[in-house]
Amino acid sequence: MALIVQKYGGSSVADAERIKGVARRIAQAKDKGNRVVVVVSAMGDTTDELINLAYQLSEQPSERELDVLLSTGEIVSSTLLTMALRAMGYEAISLTGAQAGIRTDATYNRARILKVEAKRVVKELERGNIVIVAGFQGVTDDMDVTTLGRGGSDTTAVALAAGLGAEVCQIYTDVEGVYTADPRLVPGAQRLSEIGYEEMLELASYGAKVMHPRAVELGELFHVPILVASSFTDSPGTLIHGGVSMEVREKVRSIAHDLDVAKITVVGVPDQPGIAAALFEPLARANISVDTIVQNASINNITDLTFTVAKSQLEKAMAVVAPIAKSIGARECVSDAKLGKVSIVGTGMQNTPGYAARMFGILSEQGINIQLITTSEIRITCIIDESKVKDAVRALHRAFKLDIDK
Amino acid sequence: MALIVQKYGGSSVADAERIKGVARRIAQAKDKGNRVVVVVSAMGDTTDELINLAYQLSEQPSERELDVLLSTGEIVSSTLLTMALRAMGYEAISLTGAQAGIRTDATYNRARILKVEAKRVVKELERGNIVIVAGFQGVTDDMDVTTLGRGGSDTTAVALAAGLGAEVCQIYTDVEGVYTADPRLVPGAQRLSEIGYEEMLELASYGAKVMHPRAVELGELFHVPILVASSFTDSPGTLIHGGVSMEVREKVRSIAHDLDVAKITVVGVPDQPGIAAALFEPLARANISVDTIVQNASINNITDLTFTVAKSQLEKAMAVVAPIAKSIGARECVSDAKLGKVSIVGTGMQNTPGYAARMFGILSEQGINIQLITTSEIRITCIIDESKVKDAVRALHRAFKLDIDK
Repeated sequence: MALIVQKYGGSSVADAERIKGVARRIAQAKDKGNRVVVVVSAMGDTTDELINLAYQLSEQPSERELDVLLSTGEIVSSTLLTMALRAMGYEAISLTGAQAGIRTDATYNRARILKVEAKRVVKELERGNIVIVAGFQGVTDDMDVTTLGRGGSDTTAVALAAGLGAEVCQIYTDVEGVYTADPRLVPGAQRLSEIGYEEMLELASYGAKVMHPRAVELGELFHVPILVASSFTDSPGTLIHGGVSMEVREKVRSIAHDLDVAKITVVGVPDQPGIAAALFEPLARANISVDTIVQNASINNITDLTFTVAKSQLEKAMAVVAPIAKSIGARECVSDAKLGKVSIVGTGMQNTPGYAARMFGILSEQGINIQLITTSEIRITCIIDESKVKDAVRALHRAFKLDIDK
Repeated sequence: MALIVQKYGGSSVADAERIKGVARRIAQAKDKGNRVVVVVSAMGDTTDELINLAYQLSEQPSERELDVLLSTGEIVSSTLLTMALRAMGYEAISLTGAQAGIRTDATYNRARILKVEAKRVVKELERGNIVIVAGFQGVTDDMDVTTLGRGGSDTTAVALAAGLGAEVCQIYTDVEGVYTADPRLVPGAQRLSEIGYEEMLELASYGAKVMHPRAVELGELFHVPILVASSFTDSPGTLIHGGVSMEVREKVRSIAHDLDVAKITVVGVPDQPGIAAALFEPLARANISVDTIVQNASINNITDLTFTVAKSQLEKAMAVVAPIAKSIGARECVSDAKLGKVSIVGTGMQNTPGYAARMFGILSEQGINIQLITTSEIRITCIIDESKVKDAVRALHRAFKLDIDK
């Protein structure tokens, strides 16, 4: 009897009818003889509504209180889903993150899971229950409620799967799996039936919204196979795992893109030790996430420093950087909010030269100017004009023969 | 430095503005140098909305799941109130019922408090925090969430006051205190500045909605003085306590009434042992609360059995009683759903004969027919036609000289 962990996102449980639909899917898994643990997100826009309430009462709500408040969203959906299953005649029980043994540090709003003490979950499974766990939340050693931040419910699911030694962690969402490119941009994009952790990690980090990189990383660390599939259709989805066969180690597996890119360039910086720290430490303290950083080779000891941030953080980042740029003697500080990112990802690219050159050539043929380039072992990313991203993704998808009728 | 427990009901925290108003009241109590613990109900109609959601998913929601679901309502309001206080510059922290150590039995939906393990509350008070506790909820030894049923948040407040040895438990609500009669019915009704536990218990049990008898009983048991006052005005309220002075032991202190009364009469019952049990045990199993029970003196071993239930339970009660009545050989089973209850209450009535006769006389003068009578040491209750209740309360209030200009 296999043990599986399933996770359903907020849009899958947005109202009573959808909750009943999810209950039927869970019942199918149970009917096949599996032991089933389900992690569930808050219904639809609940979390946003709760945040809105909090800001009506405080300009800067206490992080601890905000976590207790937000955790109620997932508790509500977990009980409703349990009721739906019981109404169908299945034995089921809801558990909060605390009851399910999701122990975290005390970093409110973005707590890290320290361990999973799944005693209670195991006991309820032994009693024959389907166990419905409120996602996105945990508890500190002092029994204070925390939330896990971005990708929280996915992370809960993978952590529980790891803690319980589940056969697979199934992430049900509003897409049918991982594609060779975003199907909304590229009509010929194909669903991948499987993908390796590393590739998925790069895709998720570079714009593919299907799963949060944090949960993928946890899956890799604990060797938990993760199936990403639709909660609305019966498409087989994409299995993320470590044992992807030799044959599917194609050169380029998928094209990721991200439209949320803004760039800041500090021009004419004296090239001396400590300059980078002087810039980036204050940004970190202001809780601004800096993505790509590029420093030009210096000429006459003067260099340019360029980095990217999310568009929503550009204004805040400029307010931090501008006075520092002045104080370290930089000539000026300029920004561009209309950028995008396009990446090609594939483990097959390792040790195979020429992919970067081919990518640049394809973009050049489309008349697309490359502003910044970053690479990893299995990824090449170009930052380009926002308006060119769609063309770039389509051209790359075609040129690397990822279209459905290749 | 006095320790006080305050409780605010759902209408007092119905929206962000009201929550801020409550926060200001709490801040005043803190500014006076008190240590303050606050128990809060769910916002406005939250509980009804959650129940409605549950019934969309199950005709008969699991009691355990319903309790977890409903408990989120009070958790939400406790965090929002805490945020409002912190935004005003006060140190405050929210605790769930579980965190506040409200330990209960496992009777879901109507759990009884077994003990209060207030370690965490004490620790937070020592740190200088105002402690905001989610009302209406507790936790079993297995760490399962329970709710306390009717009067739950009042009961949480009194139990915490008892457990912490608080100086007073202040129940803030939408009325200004306990009156000699319902001021909406009797314009000349006076607020009582104090009242004894026993009298309050009778009033609460016989229709005065201001406090639930369960919380009053707990207050009496643990000698917790309870102040009932308005959360919207600065009226001094009514203090419920044990040491009411001799002088205020007036004969009749207050007139209670209740419009939610239906009557069932089983006519022509053979008067033999076990008949009452045969009727009332099935009613208890069906979770129907039976109030007044009256059995006529039997004639030729044949008697009539009459009892009252809440109007909303009449149909269900008839469905239980009718077949039993038939099986025990009763002649028929009749009901009346249009009844009300009017009671006079006062410790001064003890050992003073003639109050019953006076009450009956006053009602008779008004042409009001009495259908049933029940009494306690300090209360006389008449069940009369629903349409006559208003007249009865006014006439009794006048005749017993309770009007404001007496």
